[in-house]
Amino acid sequence: MIGKNKISSITRLHQKKFRDESGLFLVEGVKSVDDLLRSSFTVQEVLATDAWAGEHENSIPVNAELTLVTPAEMERLSTWKTPQPVIAVTRIPQRELADIQMDQPLLMLDDLRDPGNMGTIVRTADWFGIRQIVCSKTTVELYNPKVIQATMGSFTRVKVFYTGLVDFIESHMKERRVLGAFLEGSPVQQFDFKPSDVIVIGNEANGITTQVAQKINDKILIDSPVKGSDKAESLNASVAAAIMMYQYHVAMSR
Amino acid sequence: MIGKNKISSITRLHQKKFRDESGLFLVEGVKSVDDLLRSSFTVQEVLATDAWAGEHENSIPVNAELTLVTPAEMERLSTWKTPQPVIAVTRIPQRELADIQMDQPLLMLDDLRDPGNMGTIVRTADWFGIRQIVCSKTTVELYNPKVIQATMGSFTRVKVFYTGLVDFIESHMKERRVLGAFLEGSPVQQFDFKPSDVIVIGNEANGITTQVAQKINDKILIDSPVKGSDKAESLNASVAAAIMMYQYHVAMSR
Repeated sequence: MIGKNKISSITRLHQKKFRDESGLFLVEGVKSVDDLLRSSFTVQEVLATDAWAGEHENSIPVNAELTLVTPAEMERLSTWKTPQPVIAVTRIPQRELADIQMDQPLLMLDDLRDPGNMGTIVRTADWFGIRQIVCSKTTVELYNPKVIQATMGSFTRVKVFYTGLVDFIESHMKERRVLGAFLEGSPVQQFDFKPSDVIVIGNEANGITTQVAQKINDKILIDSPVKGSDKAESLNASVAAAIMMYQYHVAMSR
Repeated sequence: MIGKNKISSITRLHQKKFRDESGLFLVEGVKSVDDLLRSSFTVQEVLATDAWAGEHENSIPVNAELTLVTPAEMERLSTWKTPQPVIAVTRIPQRELADIQMDQPLLMLDDLRDPGNMGTIVRTADWFGIRQIVCSKTTVELYNPKVIQATMGSFTRVKVFYTGLVDFIESHMKERRVLGAFLEGSPVQQFDFKPSDVIVIGNEANGITTQVAQKINDKILIDSPVKGSDKAESLNASVAAAIMMYQYHVAMSR
């Protein structure tokens, strides 16, 4: 039986305000916690059912507090509809721009807002070996529980940074081509990618912001075979990002 | 002011049971309703704010009842977190397998469960001109409000059918190659697509079912440049579907 104070100290981390204050976030679910325990993230506390704890006794870090909870208690702690047997309270790592490997693959997100899209993009970037993402300050927070869930553990392998994109591009991308997806541009399948190319993905409704658009070197598009008014308006942002990253990957592996 | 009975007749349609019973579903939001009103779907009733109704007076079908509602009432009627100014009660169209154009592009979904993935796949298929999707009976219902929302209006242009996939493939796909995404398969970028090829996308956690897998002619995969244990486990189903459809589209437009 866990106390009210403990419950509230966990459920407060569902909110960004308290994550910012405490520097902690929640990792929920077997798959994500498995990846977490194999990562360099600092786990402060593990709340788990008897069954999960029994099976994972040896993988819980020595400095992490273990609290056993019942499935009913888990339901109160979890942000998920179907609560999982484990939640880990984890320290938000400090990410400094100086940690970015400027010669390695990189993706940029400009004002991306949907947590599901964000998580899916982190997961897809991980798959295609793009382990660094630089986001505008307005982009949804990585440590939002829905983002973490959608990454399926990839948040442990992909480093995500937040900064002003215009300044970042001006200061650090002088030697690299910055590519953006626009409605007018060259079809991505004909684009001659270089390993140093950086792809920018824009907001779900409004695309890339005007200020960032001015810093884009080449405009690319995912074309549709459908012409005229009978056409879908656009692609989902995480789908557009995936197709861009896929095509980059294909060009790199030729 | 709308009555309790009216509110309950609408909110019941949030549930599959009542959609099945009534043969009706809800279309919420400006963009989706715009597409709906340009489609051949039968709209039975429109619930809208004054502002929306004023702007759309001429596009509301003559046989559809118009009910004016306040934003507060809309909040009670809507499944969305941010309620939109319009909801349309719409007749679920009868879809018969006989309506499938067997010589036209086709996608298959085998036991896909997540509403967001389903809607995103419908939207992506629409973009790439694949206007027919055949789903296993276990695949999430198209008329689920979350699916409709994620299609961004594409549900009006893509016909979705539900049937037993094994029988369907045996009976109707004799002349067409059926392709599936598997962990062991040929890299999709090297695959020589034909216009008649049909792609099968499987369940989020378990992939394509054993029974359907036995009917697959060719196995394809989206490969990762990352090797070893440091790799993401998989791609999101809607992302995998998008990359497959994109590559099919590229092959067709060569």
